[in-house]
Amino acid sequence: MKATIGLDYGTNSVRSLVVCCETGNELGTATLEYPSGHQGVIIDAQDANLARQHPGDYLVGIETTVIAALQEAQANHPEFSPEQVVGIGVDTTGSSPIPVDAENRALAMMPEWTDNPNAQCWLWKDHTSISEALTITETAREHRPEYVAKCGNTYSSEWFWSKIWHCLNVDEAVFDAAYSWVELADWVPAQLAGISDPVQIKRGVCMAGHKALYADDWKGLPDKEFLSMLNPKLADLRDRLYEKAYDASNSAGNLCTAWAEKLGLTAGIPLAIGEMDVHYGAIGCGIDEGTLVKVIGTSTCDCGVVHADKEIADIPGICGIVKGAILPGYYGVEAGQSAVGDIFKWWVEVVCKSDSSLHAKLEAEVASMKPGESGLLALDWNNGNRTILVDPLLTGLLMGQTLHTTRAEIHRALVEATAFGARAIVERIAEYGVPINQIVCAGGIAEKSSLLMQIYADVTGREMRVASSSQTCALGAAVGAAVVAGIYPDYKSATDVMTSLKDIVYKPNPEAHEVYTRLFKLYVQLQDAFGGVTDSAALGNVMKDLLEIKNEARKTG
Amino acid sequence: MKATIGLDYGTNSVRSLVVCCETGNELGTATLEYPSGHQGVIIDAQDANLARQHPGDYLVGIETTVIAALQEAQANHPEFSPEQVVGIGVDTTGSSPIPVDAENRALAMMPEWTDNPNAQCWLWKDHTSISEALTITETAREHRPEYVAKCGNTYSSEWFWSKIWHCLNVDEAVFDAAYSWVELADWVPAQLAGISDPVQIKRGVCMAGHKALYADDWKGLPDKEFLSMLNPKLADLRDRLYEKAYDASNSAGNLCTAWAEKLGLTAGIPLAIGEMDVHYGAIGCGIDEGTLVKVIGTSTCDCGVVHADKEIADIPGICGIVKGAILPGYYGVEAGQSAVGDIFKWWVEVVCKSDSSLHAKLEAEVASMKPGESGLLALDWNNGNRTILVDPLLTGLLMGQTLHTTRAEIHRALVEATAFGARAIVERIAEYGVPINQIVCAGGIAEKSSLLMQIYADVTGREMRVASSSQTCALGAAVGAAVVAGIYPDYKSATDVMTSLKDIVYKPNPEAHEVYTRLFKLYVQLQDAFGGVTDSAALGNVMKDLLEIKNEARKTG
Repeated sequence: MKATIGLDYGTNSVRSLVVCCETGNELGTATLEYPSGHQGVIIDAQDANLARQHPGDYLVGIETTVIAALQEAQANHPEFSPEQVVGIGVDTTGSSPIPVDAENRALAMMPEWTDNPNAQCWLWKDHTSISEALTITETAREHRPEYVAKCGNTYSSEWFWSKIWHCLNVDEAVFDAAYSWVELADWVPAQLAGISDPVQIKRGVCMAGHKALYADDWKGLPDKEFLSMLNPKLADLRDRLYEKAYDASNSAGNLCTAWAEKLGLTAGIPLAIGEMDVHYGAIGCGIDEGTLVKVIGTSTCDCGVVHADKEIADIPGICGIVKGAILPGYYGVEAGQSAVGDIFKWWVEVVCKSDSSLHAKLEAEVASMKPGESGLLALDWNNGNRTILVDPLLTGLLMGQTLHTTRAEIHRALVEATAFGARAIVERIAEYGVPINQIVCAGGIAEKSSLLMQIYADVTGREMRVASSSQTCALGAAVGAAVVAGIYPDYKSATDVMTSLKDIVYKPNPEAHEVYTRLFKLYVQLQDAFGGVTDSAALGNVMKDLLEIKNEARKTG
Repeated sequence: MKATIGLDYGTNSVRSLVVCCETGNELGTATLEYPSGHQGVIIDAQDANLARQHPGDYLVGIETTVIAALQEAQANHPEFSPEQVVGIGVDTTGSSPIPVDAENRALAMMPEWTDNPNAQCWLWKDHTSISEALTITETAREHRPEYVAKCGNTYSSEWFWSKIWHCLNVDEAVFDAAYSWVELADWVPAQLAGISDPVQIKRGVCMAGHKALYADDWKGLPDKEFLSMLNPKLADLRDRLYEKAYDASNSAGNLCTAWAEKLGLTAGIPLAIGEMDVHYGAIGCGIDEGTLVKVIGTSTCDCGVVHADKEIADIPGICGIVKGAILPGYYGVEAGQSAVGDIFKWWVEVVCKSDSSLHAKLEAEVASMKPGESGLLALDWNNGNRTILVDPLLTGLLMGQTLHTTRAEIHRALVEATAFGARAIVERIAEYGVPINQIVCAGGIAEKSSLLMQIYADVTGREMRVASSSQTCALGAAVGAAVVAGIYPDYKSATDVMTSLKDIVYKPNPEAHEVYTRLFKLYVQLQDAFGGVTDSAALGNVMKDLLEIKNEARKTG
């Protein structure tokens, strides 16, 4: 038996998963909640936008979870022993850049910086850099439109340059002390490989892509002239970052002796290139051309791939399109919804003041309702709209309520709203040539809510499947490790064996799809009006059409 | 001491109130829940639009409540005795027409018709006549535009001709058996007066006005040619209705001996002309030119008056304007919101699944919030929009919600939505020359919720007062009785003595008014877009403006 380890760094915890390469069986797993901050995140009571993470937690996380996962694997599978581990893959949140010194040590791990939030890892969901993102967007649109063409013409406050520039603006001492900045996804493999020169770190194109405005087309990172328009110090920093970024067919290095001893593994085994959690998650779902992967959690991330031989156009509102970002040899197309599970959680816990057990109860109450029967229509924008409007400053909307509307009907309308948001993404991507024959979902909600899955099938008109693994991100990282270890010649052969889908297939019901298509038209009317797509909306039909659909649904009911 | 009795027929119960004419003191009161149907209303499980009432309940109601109220008055006020009662006034819901035979007996009180819902009183909220109302509207707009000009160009399914015509369409036997049709507000005084010829009943102009399309301008009821366009049998019916309708300076007759004996009152005392409950309610609030009366209950009714010497234009969306309808010598201007208290009740009881005690708790939670601080905006259309859109087929809307929005914030947003709806009415009426210097409210919500009253003051920018009496409708009917009994020469002298306001004055806060004016602009944008007022709405600003107002409110907080 050969095995690999997937190391999955989430927002609140890190997980190790030991996977059998010949079967995809998950042999052992362990997680650690990050010990620092609030639920692992360093926050600031004065500034809700701030979200940082202590890099020391990442290193503790390797040791604790890998050793525990190996122990579990041995305990449950006597045929397994740690020397059978042939590679390690790492996935993380991103963009989560870490300021490091010239020896690749995180500043925050040095006594003089350890209490300074600006010296920590700038977690993906840190939104302190809104004004920097705005200026980068404007500067790029004017001077380098190609830089933002593949990320919906909008650069985000969640990304690499916004954060680093904000650090320079608010805490120049940290900026100056940082020799370089390294994405968490690159930093962990580099630590495992014992790479002590930041410039020598093999960086993944997945994180570099639109997040650091990297592309081979313009020879890597943004040119110095552009960076100087922001701040000359950013242009200087460019020399201390990287020239080239790599896709996941490459190895990030080999396990160094020190870490091999600590973990009880074989020194020299290869390390996969680090990728975004959802990208390795897409691989853990067996992504291929024609399959859209949706990782449905608090928010949703959508991943599609198109063979790199083909031409792919810029897709408006899609952020982003990066060659090699998900699967080597393919364009990775990424989209997402800013809140999905979070919206249901808000409804059940904040408004209905219940606990998570209410989700299933509300779903049961409206499971037999027909599409349109509630007369309700909602927008899924409680946390903004990532795709296809790329606007974090949008908010939720619910309409059609009468004096009889129930909390369960509203819950269902919110599920439907996220399905309409999903359809808007699917249609936009498909319109621009990304084939979508089936949709494979991962995440707890996809596993638990057959109502949601059926509604998504009915709304999108496409077959929905669910990945077998509950840990698709860690599984995908383990697949990456199996490929760089040479167990499989390519990702296709690896995922064919190591990943699988549950048997259940959610097929679209044609009648339901027809009604949902009428409702989706109304959703698009609201989307275009409130999203500012049109400035001459005629909405006088919306309430009447909802009533008509409601009355028809009740008659046929 | 002289006293009068106000008899107030509501939707679910009837109340008698004995009032001292010299002071307005309320000496005794009693109510009866109508014994028939569900909470007094005959309904049909197959047809949610049907709402009827058994006329026998009205007669039982007189006897039971008048006698009990007199007893209470005697018990609590030894100086009072029933022979001091000098008149009776009656207010009722409407349009609530009753089919009667040639002797003014309600068909439903005869054995052959007693179980037929079509032979009952057609309660105001019966909506079975939607298609008839539509045809009447279209026919009038084409052939007699003046008929609907004073009721927002729309004839309602709740009104006289829609209901009678629907009866003819669905149950011709009942129509044929009915010699005439009498509004409840006219039928009760006629019963008390012992009038046995329907054509001799003195009908009130308040009910006749737009509800029966009556106006002196076109010599009474709609002409036969017009009625024939609907159905020749309606033209024939016109001869068996009435030629002239009267305002509340007239008496409807005198108490007949039979009823005098039954009630222990003096035969021959005058009976005031019957009026709509809210119209006598406006009188019970001391209505005068410059004072807008709002009766805030499950829904809201707004009443204003303009001296009949003046010219008054048709007011778009206002339904309706009737000379003498509220106060003799004045145009009565009536408007309303289809749901107010019902919306709060829906939120608290249906969605939050709590009881009425939650209202106060939610209000306390958001009482110190600043206008705009929640970022929410709602439309108050859960039960349609009566004024200013005259469209029962509109529905509710809530927007601006995030993942942190609380149920209390939503509750407050719903209160604010009804305040914006109130402001839309106030502005429309004022724009067309109805002076509004202060707003006087009546009803339980106005008495209980100081938060709501302050929000209404801040939103409308006008002083809000609350009527002293909790029974303004019955009190107003008693005032009417005092006038026809000659205790006072006119309504002004009567209301000066018999009605009063609570001491508290809700004054608009200028800063809050300014913020609410910005929010009201957004409300109007939504109203015009979803109400179909405009077909080229630009709404891209709405979510952004709400966020801006929210951020400003939080900064200054």
